[in-house]
Amino acid sequence: MRKLTLGLATSLDNYIARKDGGTDWLHWSQEVAELSARFMKTVDALLIGRKTYQVMLASGQTSYPGARNYVITRTKKNAASMIKRLANKNDRSVEVVTSDAAQFVRKLKQEKGKGIALFGGGELARALFEADLIDEVVLNIQPVILGSGIPLFCQHPKQICLSLRQAKPLKDGGLVVSYRVKH
Amino acid sequence: MRKLTLGLATSLDNYIARKDGGTDWLHWSQEVAELSARFMKTVDALLIGRKTYQVMLASGQTSYPGARNYVITRTKKNAASMIKRLANKNDRSVEVVTSDAAQFVRKLKQEKGKGIALFGGGELARALFEADLIDEVVLNIQPVILGSGIPLFCQHPKQICLSLRQAKPLKDGGLVVSYRVKH
Repeated sequence: MRKLTLGLATSLDNYIARKDGGTDWLHWSQEVAELSARFMKTVDALLIGRKTYQVMLASGQTSYPGARNYVITRTKKNAASMIKRLANKNDRSVEVVTSDAAQFVRKLKQEKGKGIALFGGGELARALFEADLIDEVVLNIQPVILGSGIPLFCQHPKQICLSLRQAKPLKDGGLVVSYRVKH
Repeated sequence: MRKLTLGLATSLDNYIARKDGGTDWLHWSQEVAELSARFMKTVDALLIGRKTYQVMLASGQTSYPGARNYVITRTKKNAASMIKRLANKNDRSVEVVTSDAAQFVRKLKQEKGKGIALFGGGELARALFEADLIDEVVLNIQPVILGSGIPLFCQHPKQICLSLRQAKPLKDGGLVVSYRVKH
């Protein structure tokens, strides 16, 4: 079965963006770029939450290269506007998914392929944690307490037990932590 | 000036206790005991939030030995019941503080002595961060996503910038991270 990795940058107080989606506080260094490139070689499918995707679109990026991009949204209206925008940009590497996220990902994990990465989406992550579909959590913890924002981990009823695999301090002040999810 | 260190164990999703105050999910190992003992030698004053102190009292502990214990509470009713309980236990190492936390701590930092530790208290930590009185953050991040609970970092308007000093994986699965606060 393909491995699903939740991979994100986060503040020390558990936020992935400011309330307005701002990510100006994220450090991006050569070291992070190399780590990301190495990780991206291990995956060929990306799951992107709708809110995270809107931040991507706002910065002019419609997809991550080298992988099939799946944008997960529950609202058909958002899906329609995203599909239109993608058609305009002629980006065929993106698929907008409006079906049940857990069902979709369960099926995707059973198909042949490399690993799958989950980018963003506190609510999407919650749904996939609840369905016990996430195998690994890799966070780049930034050296900042934001005070408010869009949370990485939303409140959910189920406790998730993890096993620490690695903690790697970066030269830019970030800390990459890698955990295996105990199923 | 004495250094003030916020030192706590936390879940990966930023909780210091379950909603009911439960800390059954915390690992406590010989290694943690040794690290704590080494840290406690560097401090002679402890600031304890009211909620954290009530969890301590419930477990039968009225103070940490080897240091002056200051329990910070804003409500006089809570203070009165704690003072009564301490008198019954004849524990003279604890002082209940009901004055403004930031003012009290600012004065304490200017007195002669070793370091000061801050245990618990999301709201207390917020007040002291806002007054720019916290110099260091040391967390023992436990390998668990709790899903809900009492947050370590409450929402606050000010962004706090940090500098990573150390990240030390423990044998019990915890990860001790140490940050310097950029004033």
